[in-house]
Amino acid sequence: MVPHLTTALTGPLLDLEQHMLDAQPRIEQWLRAKWQEHDAPFYASVDLRNAGFKLAPVDTNLFPGGFNNLNPDFMPLCVQATMSAVEKVCPVAQRFLLIPENHTRNTFYLQNVATLAGILRHAGLSVRIGSLLPEITGPTVMDLPGGQSLTLEPVRREGDKLRLDGFEPCAVLLNNDLSAGIPELLKGLKQPVIPPLHAGWATRRKTHHFSAYDQVAAEFSSIIHMDPWLINPFFDDCHEINFQERNGEECLAAKVDELLQDIREKYREYGVKNAPFVIVKADAGTYGMGVMTVKDASEVRGLNHKQRNKMSVIKEGQQVSEVIIQEGVYTFESINEAVAEPVVYMMDHFVVGGFYRVHTGRGQDENLNAPGMHFVPLAFDTSCSLPDYAAGPDTPPNRFYAYGVVARLALLAAAIELENAAR
Amino acid sequence: MVPHLTTALTGPLLDLEQHMLDAQPRIEQWLRAKWQEHDAPFYASVDLRNAGFKLAPVDTNLFPGGFNNLNPDFMPLCVQATMSAVEKVCPVAQRFLLIPENHTRNTFYLQNVATLAGILRHAGLSVRIGSLLPEITGPTVMDLPGGQSLTLEPVRREGDKLRLDGFEPCAVLLNNDLSAGIPELLKGLKQPVIPPLHAGWATRRKTHHFSAYDQVAAEFSSIIHMDPWLINPFFDDCHEINFQERNGEECLAAKVDELLQDIREKYREYGVKNAPFVIVKADAGTYGMGVMTVKDASEVRGLNHKQRNKMSVIKEGQQVSEVIIQEGVYTFESINEAVAEPVVYMMDHFVVGGFYRVHTGRGQDENLNAPGMHFVPLAFDTSCSLPDYAAGPDTPPNRFYAYGVVARLALLAAAIELENAAR
Repeated sequence: MVPHLTTALTGPLLDLEQHMLDAQPRIEQWLRAKWQEHDAPFYASVDLRNAGFKLAPVDTNLFPGGFNNLNPDFMPLCVQATMSAVEKVCPVAQRFLLIPENHTRNTFYLQNVATLAGILRHAGLSVRIGSLLPEITGPTVMDLPGGQSLTLEPVRREGDKLRLDGFEPCAVLLNNDLSAGIPELLKGLKQPVIPPLHAGWATRRKTHHFSAYDQVAAEFSSIIHMDPWLINPFFDDCHEINFQERNGEECLAAKVDELLQDIREKYREYGVKNAPFVIVKADAGTYGMGVMTVKDASEVRGLNHKQRNKMSVIKEGQQVSEVIIQEGVYTFESINEAVAEPVVYMMDHFVVGGFYRVHTGRGQDENLNAPGMHFVPLAFDTSCSLPDYAAGPDTPPNRFYAYGVVARLALLAAAIELENAAR
Repeated sequence: MVPHLTTALTGPLLDLEQHMLDAQPRIEQWLRAKWQEHDAPFYASVDLRNAGFKLAPVDTNLFPGGFNNLNPDFMPLCVQATMSAVEKVCPVAQRFLLIPENHTRNTFYLQNVATLAGILRHAGLSVRIGSLLPEITGPTVMDLPGGQSLTLEPVRREGDKLRLDGFEPCAVLLNNDLSAGIPELLKGLKQPVIPPLHAGWATRRKTHHFSAYDQVAAEFSSIIHMDPWLINPFFDDCHEINFQERNGEECLAAKVDELLQDIREKYREYGVKNAPFVIVKADAGTYGMGVMTVKDASEVRGLNHKQRNKMSVIKEGQQVSEVIIQEGVYTFESINEAVAEPVVYMMDHFVVGGFYRVHTGRGQDENLNAPGMHFVPLAFDTSCSLPDYAAGPDTPPNRFYAYGVVARLALLAAAIELENAAR
């Protein structure tokens, strides 16, 4: 079962997919060269939006939380890619301490942790799970659906190393995006911390990521001769905003207006009849909190109390003072009339699978990763690495190949972003 | 469908499998360290024999010819491993010239070439197939079962480069084992030749491989505390033999006798009731020609005319003057009463799949890779990288994991063998 594109405007996308298929040797050679220059993150997931006329990343997660949603058939791919990632980052490691998010009541998330731990174990690592939660004071077994369980253990710091009872990890793997800031416990560790602390939302900014993506998309587009806009959403930032005190509203409105005009121009060029929209979201945010869809600059001027509240606080109660204004990309993929948004998973620089977030109650111009949003995951049916040259674009293996290419461009942007942040 | 072990002597093997499962993190860490020191061959297949009490490699092929026999579900694994191999060997390459064996009438082999070319293409390479056959004077389309076809083209040398009409390859991938010697055409090329020419049977010797395997098996066995004999067949060589003129017969008989005694001692130690046997085969041979099973030294003394002929000539009419005498390992795996021998496929240092050679008309002590031997391939059902920790040894994922470990040990031996040969 694969979602269908429900737009008449598939022309440019089919061109784009065909283009990517035709240019595959050039694309893969270019990517190979890039991965000689840049180190891929250990793992990542990329949210894509497929508008038919445009296929673009809208978010790159360096602490992916949906491994349980991948097609189990692709577990061997995950294991192989993990072996490759471990070789690069910490070849001598034998024991991994996995530090998850503090969502102990989110069964879906815990299943992700269990799946991820399973992948790491199959790649030949001893894995135990250390919780940052103060209430975890001893080994705590969490029961999961299907008879599985997960044991969380309290993390202890001894000198400049983390450990659990009877377990001295060689490396620390974070599956916690550090939205609440970098805990003291994790600072200045002697063990390798993967991804590095500066990959967390305590320091990361979406605008830095998309600046790097601008470069990547421009270079990539030049080698396969296409308009980078077809894979790249416009964006701008607003870095001194206070929704509660209504500071910076005018600046935001002006930039929203400018961006909407830029999009309108592009829509005109490609004959897109839909209304342009932008997404305003926290620059350091995640988890779909503090996000709004805007079709007219006036909408950000007269925010009511509830809207202001919604925009000003994100995960872990962090205040929002910096936002990214991102070109909204319509999602024109749907399955049984529900909107479907692809998410691509990568380990090292390999695409290991993906799934669709399928949501019935949302519009084509809304964010599908929002609180209370209980999407149904639909695992990709086939791999992203087996395009069918004999078939046309728009067949699943070819669409998935295009997804894999765009996701890897976002991954490359993340690699460059992390390098810049480490300077 | 998975073959069953038909021996009561599974004790030591189940111990071995359980041992490998328990020691997985240590094994994988050790292998990771080894692959930092040694470069894995681009690809390889390893023939294993599973005697229940012993699991050992008996042949390592550096020009594997059965990609068509792998489970199609594992194609993404092959593609991912190929990407990794290309990155290491020739990251800038975009166009590969694939040079196959000269078996244009062997449809099974041609299907292998087609599958291999497909894997390379999916990994993002432009691939064309160049034949060394003089009768291929222009593009020649070979029809394959299932409506597939393969185009062979004549290879031309220009200066120190190979090319086809309208195609300048960046690298040359050999799927031809050079049994007939190294063609002038391939000597001193500027393009990378993969695997290197010295991996061909023109220079390769089985005894060199198994000497390297001796070291690898000894070190591996010491880290997981077991008797290396359980994964390593004894062997010896005889390097001045002429079957036609009956020279060296006595030397051969004496060494056969010695080896049989060594095996008998080990059989006694482990309580194995079967009769020991050795395999005498060409040291530079392949393709199952020039192979005999010997249970008593007297058998190599009184060879009749037909036997002498059989032993003295191998593939491409090469004369045999050097033989390896290898401990025979019983194959106690069978399916529907047919003997089954596992073959494990690797690309770079990753296990990408495997299959069983299933043959009804052969005994447990015979070579299953012999001329006229029409085995039925039975693809491995599951991957070799997903052992099931909750299940016991002898369940397929755990048996396949053990296969993958032993095959990678043979691969490591091949890496060391090639390094030594390059000196």
